[in-house]
Amino acid sequence: MIDKDSLTHHISQQFNAELEEVRSHLLAMGGLVEKQVNDAVTALIDADSGLAQQVREIDDEINQMERNIDEECVRILARRQPAASDLRLIISVSKSVIDLERIGDEASKIARRAIQLCEEGVSPRGYVEVRHIGDQVRRMVQESLDAFARFDADLALSVAQYDKTIDREYKTALRELVTYMMEDPRAISRVLNIIWALRSLERIGDHARNIAELVIYLVRGTDVRHMGLARMQEEVKGTANKAGDTPAS
Amino acid sequence: MIDKDSLTHHISQQFNAELEEVRSHLLAMGGLVEKQVNDAVTALIDADSGLAQQVREIDDEINQMERNIDEECVRILARRQPAASDLRLIISVSKSVIDLERIGDEASKIARRAIQLCEEGVSPRGYVEVRHIGDQVRRMVQESLDAFARFDADLALSVAQYDKTIDREYKTALRELVTYMMEDPRAISRVLNIIWALRSLERIGDHARNIAELVIYLVRGTDVRHMGLARMQEEVKGTANKAGDTPAS
Repeated sequence: MIDKDSLTHHISQQFNAELEEVRSHLLAMGGLVEKQVNDAVTALIDADSGLAQQVREIDDEINQMERNIDEECVRILARRQPAASDLRLIISVSKSVIDLERIGDEASKIARRAIQLCEEGVSPRGYVEVRHIGDQVRRMVQESLDAFARFDADLALSVAQYDKTIDREYKTALRELVTYMMEDPRAISRVLNIIWALRSLERIGDHARNIAELVIYLVRGTDVRHMGLARMQEEVKGTANKAGDTPAS
Repeated sequence: MIDKDSLTHHISQQFNAELEEVRSHLLAMGGLVEKQVNDAVTALIDADSGLAQQVREIDDEINQMERNIDEECVRILARRQPAASDLRLIISVSKSVIDLERIGDEASKIARRAIQLCEEGVSPRGYVEVRHIGDQVRRMVQESLDAFARFDADLALSVAQYDKTIDREYKTALRELVTYMMEDPRAISRVLNIIWALRSLERIGDHARNIAELVIYLVRGTDVRHMGLARMQEEVKGTANKAGDTPAS
């Protein structure tokens, strides 16, 4: 297990500074991505095509951040040959940037839907759901990054657990919107824009969960992907029970 | 630039064997994923819920392959401290498995749609498009893996270029299906299953393109993501022209 302090006790001060730097670049990229999600949802709800256009333009900046962080990781791997928790940090950073970049992509897709809704006219349904699910996934992204910043496996676990709630609410919203389309077929095209935006939000929740799983890998050293929430909780809480008596999640 | 021969001239025979092994594991995972895409599309078109169920079960196996390859990559990074093209190989493998796993996820989602269509009844439209786009993205996956196996940057470039064709055909299919839903609202739910399957296929094309870009990075040492097809072609063909006079793509 590692914590923030273990990073400060490093043989090479320079190496230490490099690790801190790549981590802080990841968090800066995360902050911008989180803002993109927020702005994309606002643009869609307020029918603000100017804000939507801005989200699409900033996407290039995020792609550039991904490239830079990747280069930093490769440089550290090649020169410093990190081991143990340092290696896990570099692996977690280099995988998290992929998820952050894709969250940025999804925010950009939501912005495209916002622009389309400005052109085609508003959807008769779905804005409440976009705002509600949007708020929740934005918080998931924020908390997955907080968990990364603080090496907090418990917070990461709660992010991963929350993804189930998003999936459930997304399915409910989808069902209602499909029913509405059947009642008013003229609105199909506009309602579909909302459905695509909701799907992007649901994907953003998946990516936040991926980042949370990388934080657990970073802190605990265990790859918890695909293992189910009950076992993941055992790994994080240190209550692994080989008899298969899993706690309720 | 590296080719297959450069791998055979390695100081440590054991290290060499490890690199060959992780690469062959990636290709084996790729072969299974490609089969999953094929089976999922067949299950959807033939309304074969047994085959669809099988695709969903095999997804666990793919997840396990991802974990194993990841562990191999971490072990090689920690023990062998690879540099230059060896390091690029490990980075390309560890990123490609992420895309392969997600292609597997999308195949699994297509299989879920196949099962739903077996329950709700067939869609009145869209099977021709699923078969056509399905064939093309399966070939993209196959060729991106062939490019990886042969260190073939030219083949990788053609895969990346082909993604544009998929995006265009996906959009055309989508427009037609939306028009159809407006004419026959009772079919909305069934047609939406086809739309979700097409979207998964389009995503699979994106992931094949990502793998192709990693092959170019592996072979040429240049990160070609987000740079546009014209510049990517210059990088691969070695005709980079700083005056901005780009060849037609």
